[in-house]
Amino acid sequence: MTKYQLLLDRINEVQDLRKAIRILTWDREVNMPPGGELDRTNQITTLNRLSHSLYTSDETGKLIEYADKELNGIDYASTEASLIRFLKQDYQQARLLPDEYIARSTLINGRATAAWKEARQKDDYSIFSPWLKEVIELAREKSEYIGFQDDPYDALLNVYEPGAKTSDIRALFEAAKRDLIHLYRLVRERKATIDDRFLHQHYPVKLQKEYSRYIASTIGYDFNRGHLATAIHPFSTSLSRNDVRITTRYNSEYLSPSIFATLHEAGHALYVQNVDPGLTRTPLAMETSAGLDESQSRLMENIVGRSLGFWKAQLPKLRKYFPAQLSEVGFEQFYKAINKVQPSLIRVEADELTYNMHVILRFEIEQALLNQSLAVQDVPQAWNERMKKFLGIEPPDFRQGCLQDIHWTLVGFGYFPTYALGNLYAAQFFEAACSHDPVILDELEEGKIDRLLEWLRANIHQHGRKFTAEEIVHQVTGGPLSHEAFVRYATTKFAKVYGL
Amino acid sequence: MTKYQLLLDRINEVQDLRKAIRILTWDREVNMPPGGELDRTNQITTLNRLSHSLYTSDETGKLIEYADKELNGIDYASTEASLIRFLKQDYQQARLLPDEYIARSTLINGRATAAWKEARQKDDYSIFSPWLKEVIELAREKSEYIGFQDDPYDALLNVYEPGAKTSDIRALFEAAKRDLIHLYRLVRERKATIDDRFLHQHYPVKLQKEYSRYIASTIGYDFNRGHLATAIHPFSTSLSRNDVRITTRYNSEYLSPSIFATLHEAGHALYVQNVDPGLTRTPLAMETSAGLDESQSRLMENIVGRSLGFWKAQLPKLRKYFPAQLSEVGFEQFYKAINKVQPSLIRVEADELTYNMHVILRFEIEQALLNQSLAVQDVPQAWNERMKKFLGIEPPDFRQGCLQDIHWTLVGFGYFPTYALGNLYAAQFFEAACSHDPVILDELEEGKIDRLLEWLRANIHQHGRKFTAEEIVHQVTGGPLSHEAFVRYATTKFAKVYGL
Repeated sequence: MTKYQLLLDRINEVQDLRKAIRILTWDREVNMPPGGELDRTNQITTLNRLSHSLYTSDETGKLIEYADKELNGIDYASTEASLIRFLKQDYQQARLLPDEYIARSTLINGRATAAWKEARQKDDYSIFSPWLKEVIELAREKSEYIGFQDDPYDALLNVYEPGAKTSDIRALFEAAKRDLIHLYRLVRERKATIDDRFLHQHYPVKLQKEYSRYIASTIGYDFNRGHLATAIHPFSTSLSRNDVRITTRYNSEYLSPSIFATLHEAGHALYVQNVDPGLTRTPLAMETSAGLDESQSRLMENIVGRSLGFWKAQLPKLRKYFPAQLSEVGFEQFYKAINKVQPSLIRVEADELTYNMHVILRFEIEQALLNQSLAVQDVPQAWNERMKKFLGIEPPDFRQGCLQDIHWTLVGFGYFPTYALGNLYAAQFFEAACSHDPVILDELEEGKIDRLLEWLRANIHQHGRKFTAEEIVHQVTGGPLSHEAFVRYATTKFAKVYGL
Repeated sequence: MTKYQLLLDRINEVQDLRKAIRILTWDREVNMPPGGELDRTNQITTLNRLSHSLYTSDETGKLIEYADKELNGIDYASTEASLIRFLKQDYQQARLLPDEYIARSTLINGRATAAWKEARQKDDYSIFSPWLKEVIELAREKSEYIGFQDDPYDALLNVYEPGAKTSDIRALFEAAKRDLIHLYRLVRERKATIDDRFLHQHYPVKLQKEYSRYIASTIGYDFNRGHLATAIHPFSTSLSRNDVRITTRYNSEYLSPSIFATLHEAGHALYVQNVDPGLTRTPLAMETSAGLDESQSRLMENIVGRSLGFWKAQLPKLRKYFPAQLSEVGFEQFYKAINKVQPSLIRVEADELTYNMHVILRFEIEQALLNQSLAVQDVPQAWNERMKKFLGIEPPDFRQGCLQDIHWTLVGFGYFPTYALGNLYAAQFFEAACSHDPVILDELEEGKIDRLLEWLRANIHQHGRKFTAEEIVHQVTGGPLSHEAFVRYATTKFAKVYGL
């Protein structure tokens, strides 16, 4: 048996444990009865500790080292070289976190999540704030274990966006914020009213469910290797390229949430469903970073799913599901309604233009919490001030303010910026795709995305984690990530929607 | 930290892995897309091997030994003493199976299951038979690892029914077979026709789903600690007393399957949902044997769920769900229809009287396969001959014959007899319950089961695995398991239904 095969056997074991954790987590949100909460936290804690301890053992390190020597000089882009490259970096980073920390933080996550749910339900920030303190302590501890050169936030960010620098993201976001706030003001000054009342009518959930299956299939999601379920906070979970699950949510009085959550999650799923079959079962059969993953979901949700061409082609089909609600609605009207700019208190309901501001707000607060320039009890105030400054609105309660997201229960510090990075990546990729193959734009005008999907598969999806996000963006667009493509995209689009 | 606590920590770890396996298995039948099959087999194999190796390590043995010494002389019925007693026996037995065997048999199970599905679909026994050979080899190997005194089948049986002897079961079944075939002949000679056509009409699945939730709650199933899903072959899965899941199936043209599968699975679930909360997270928070578990499901499905009193009370409610289908049906008519005796090719659709014959048939074939007096290629013939002899009917194809059950893909040799044991236990328990508290019978005549549930909780459910099945049956009924209570029950019941 080769050293490489021995390494694969070990890594497969670790991966099988991690996949079990993903099913336990997916199940918690989709099927688990309320009574199962405490036991489930215990189960996930045990599996997390075991998989971490197996992965970070000295033996795994030796297996990586021996396989690396055995494969010395092999082609950089080969699966073998890519796996070794990924593991060397990932293993070193994982080794920095003790088993005890993994177990303790998993347990605290479970309890913080329960407290967050209760706090939201009672709209009482004080129920959650002691747990937020614990979570911040865990985040700080983590950044110390991992270590950093410039900014403790780098250590947290790199878990989700390997190699990214907080200072670069801050500069990107500052530039984006300036341009987007400017564009947002132009839209507001236009004082145009877009009538979207037809979206707010009774749409039977049964039919929305059927339509969600249809629209996910239409953009290429494969149900033979997928599953669509319902969740309060939609998410996607990939076990392997052969089992990539999505969730969506249904509001019987509002059509948009199910359509756009489905397009978003199916966009995520396309990434892993289209990974090179040769990578199956290896840790490379995944998105290479959270930002790149988000680029695929935002691309399908917005650049495709909120485009005029797409709905020119798709509206007749949608009307067949909801004739009474939509027979009088034309596609121009539909297009404008789903692109209506309106400041929203809730991130996941925000339009494309204001969405990034929600993320930047969280990014700023996270950093302030981490460097202790902001105290936990002052989060609501800091939140509301920024909402006022960025979007001119203020949350009337905690539920629609700083208690809306689950991320701060999950030691998910460092995750939020990847949402905005996703938008920037998506626009930059789309520009590159269209300049490489202009037929993509013509097709999209007819509601077709075959060429776009082909391009995404060939340039992004198939590689999985073989290359870093930085490598991919350079390979594909010829330069580093910038905010410019997104600003160009948004300016063109909202000029069209609002006649600027 | 006490030695006992150290032992608990280790066992909790093992249990968390086993619970993850149960979720992976449950998910495979309920949610998993077809493409996920191979990966899932790998995941379950890894977790099975890891949990087995952790459990059977020398260290676990020492932890049991030290805790046993520490607790020396503690009350037999205490949780601590019961856990040590259970673990000493269970650990020794598990140690007999090598990790390599566990991994290999899990993999073969996965592949045999896939072959069985294909064989059923194509109605081609030859696709499955090579895998059945492998499964028999595994079963034989297992019985050699475990060891036995009289009969190699004992070793397999004891995995599901600890302490049971094949020779005792053979004697029980011979006696039951004689009496039941006699009773069956009397019913056939009566030539009474029971009209059950009203059960075979269109019953919308949506309403059947709502009714299934209602009827499960009615017999005490707690949805706050449970979940009802759909599966082709209904089953139940318990993770802890706080998460006990059931599945059922729906036939839009036939009402009985969903009602009786739901009552059956909810009956299983009541056992674990009512285990003493002090046992939560220990391996004692489970049914003590497969036969005892089956006694609870058959009790709810048949003794309660096919009784006249229950439907006197419940039929008006059922009519509210299905007024067009049932408004003309009286409860006597309903009672007779759901108790119609009719030889069936399919075990899970069999009436109460002929059901045990299906089990005895499988028990006989399993033993013949194991002791090599029957060759794999002759199974269809052996099957059909027995069907003819026991019930006077013959399967027209494999699907309705020897390919109907999943058990022979699961190295589940030794499991089938527990289905018939369940019927015998159920009748014996019910007699004991009624003689202890005659109000139970009066209540049942009014469709109420509060006192019965109370008795089951106090005498069976709460103990979980603290006592063996043999101990429970002695404690509760004052003697060993016998076929007599069941024969008395069946004779009385079918005399009533058929006016014998």
